[in-house]
Amino acid sequence: MRDLTEDDIDALEVGAAILGTGGGGNPYIGKLRCKRQLRSGQAMTLMGLDELPDDAFVIEVGGIGAPVVSIEKIDQGQECLRALRALEEYYGRKADALIAAEIGGSNALEPLITASQAGIPVVDGDGMGRAFPEMQMGTFSIYGKSSAPAALADEKGNIVLYREVTSEIWFERLARATVTAMGATAGSATSPMPGHYVKKVAVPHTVTKALDLGNAVLSANRSHTNPIEVICRTQGGVRLMDGKITDVRRHLRGGFNIGEVRIQGVDAHAGETAVIALQNEFLAFTRGGVTEVCVPDLIVLLDLDTGHAITTDVLRFGQRVAVVALPCHDLLRTPEALAVVGPQAFGLQGVTFRPLPAHPVP
Amino acid sequence: MRDLTEDDIDALEVGAAILGTGGGGNPYIGKLRCKRQLRSGQAMTLMGLDELPDDAFVIEVGGIGAPVVSIEKIDQGQECLRALRALEEYYGRKADALIAAEIGGSNALEPLITASQAGIPVVDGDGMGRAFPEMQMGTFSIYGKSSAPAALADEKGNIVLYREVTSEIWFERLARATVTAMGATAGSATSPMPGHYVKKVAVPHTVTKALDLGNAVLSANRSHTNPIEVICRTQGGVRLMDGKITDVRRHLRGGFNIGEVRIQGVDAHAGETAVIALQNEFLAFTRGGVTEVCVPDLIVLLDLDTGHAITTDVLRFGQRVAVVALPCHDLLRTPEALAVVGPQAFGLQGVTFRPLPAHPVP
Repeated sequence: MRDLTEDDIDALEVGAAILGTGGGGNPYIGKLRCKRQLRSGQAMTLMGLDELPDDAFVIEVGGIGAPVVSIEKIDQGQECLRALRALEEYYGRKADALIAAEIGGSNALEPLITASQAGIPVVDGDGMGRAFPEMQMGTFSIYGKSSAPAALADEKGNIVLYREVTSEIWFERLARATVTAMGATAGSATSPMPGHYVKKVAVPHTVTKALDLGNAVLSANRSHTNPIEVICRTQGGVRLMDGKITDVRRHLRGGFNIGEVRIQGVDAHAGETAVIALQNEFLAFTRGGVTEVCVPDLIVLLDLDTGHAITTDVLRFGQRVAVVALPCHDLLRTPEALAVVGPQAFGLQGVTFRPLPAHPVP
Repeated sequence: MRDLTEDDIDALEVGAAILGTGGGGNPYIGKLRCKRQLRSGQAMTLMGLDELPDDAFVIEVGGIGAPVVSIEKIDQGQECLRALRALEEYYGRKADALIAAEIGGSNALEPLITASQAGIPVVDGDGMGRAFPEMQMGTFSIYGKSSAPAALADEKGNIVLYREVTSEIWFERLARATVTAMGATAGSATSPMPGHYVKKVAVPHTVTKALDLGNAVLSANRSHTNPIEVICRTQGGVRLMDGKITDVRRHLRGGFNIGEVRIQGVDAHAGETAVIALQNEFLAFTRGGVTEVCVPDLIVLLDLDTGHAITTDVLRFGQRVAVVALPCHDLLRTPEALAVVGPQAFGLQGVTFRPLPAHPVP
């Protein structure tokens, strides 16, 4: 176990944005809230998966809703804590530790704030190893634990409990409708589960991975070097293309940011054109009519100069980017997982998942 | 206490449709389900308000959703029972009796089915004395009892608990969003409350009133006489106008049936024109530019020949109708009640509620 510092939070903001693969919500406000929490004297503790007792009671927390709204409508600050308390009350048992639903974007930080408020640690892992747009797309439910009983809480004080759901898709539908009515953002506490299950199915070490990624970028920025090669080397990434954004098509459908971005190659890639499909996150990278990389592997757009992640909501004409692909964890590559987070689950017709070479987890 | 018979159910169908004031959902399928329940040998027991113990635990049950969908998507049959069981489990206490949220339309029958399944009685009263389109429009919440904790259940097996809501309007919004996602119909169990509170704020004797109304119509139909005058005489009603429907404007907005119907007077009312505004139910009767009757008083359209109610979803050009106004109960005429169910609550600008002469409750 170790207590995180304000420097860690700075790194986590940058690394979580990269693992967000274009989505996951902007972690900037989460960073500010983390720092306020630390400055108020509360500890923010990270616990290794190997330190988690088998009989620990672990709950997944995170924000749910439209990322862009979470910037306009700033959290009251206790949404996730209220959802957590409601779920604990339902079980008659306090949580021993929290875990992130997704390490990508703002939801990397949310469990840290809630756990600090509750005085318990956050486990070093998550349910996605990245960000995904829908709630059923996590390892905890893919490998058999229902998200319900689960709780949603908004900034006004409303608390809704999902006592029974017939499938994860139904949970996603019902929770999404409620969140939309709540004003498009809410805090959630889901998937209450024992420590031994978390150890088996959580994507491991992802808080540490986000910290490492963030530190690599920040340290390169300080030394005026370019972090993109470091990211690829340390994370098993492939630099697919350097290019300029020439077209962005994007619209909101069902609360999601849907569309595609076109990129014209520069330098070594001059003359090439690529298209990246997106639903909140980047889904598939297609060049010359061939889809080279797709979900669940990670497709990341990095600013060509700074190495910072560019999210799907701030894409614009003329941005100079490096398209980097990172291999997802093996837990997302099983047949059970691909049925939920593979290209067909996103409606990508005729696309086959060809995994990037796996990168050994540290 | 008395056990209802199949004849009672026939009468209740007709009377509940009249008290539905154009809405409340078609009670036809509810009637069939009641009869099946009775034929399976289960009792369906009505309990007088004066028989209800002060410390009884009473729960309000009913269908929620779009009435027209409830005809297309027939209930699985245990939606309300599942919602009831979830709420009982939350409290750790079984309900002693159920009560209808609204006596108008199909929700007059729903509590009878659920109570019969659970083996408990239904109280002779309800929260509206008619039908209203939104959940906050009932006496139980108007006089201070939150609808939450409350439960919704759908035909698939999903169960959602509203543990805390900051207002009745928020409950309506959140529940409506969930019901829409569930497929536009669901069963609800709401407003858990003690017997002494029910005795104070329930609109009394309304199951009996619906039975009386229905029996009056059915008996007139059998003797080939016209029941409209009997309805007016026994219920303190005013026969506002006999006429022919000349125009129906109606659209769906936010899950509600919104619009207006125009009526051209016939016989003694020849030359007159009236407009009735509607939101699921009939809201206001305006003749020659003057609104003569409005919510919360009841405006009912009856078939000129049979005296059966005509609901807002089957209005059509050329129908010959009697427009009858019935006084609402005094519990809906207090300042607290008028703020929630008066003309302003429905957005009827510049309309003042001028109560019909009250009719003594039997």
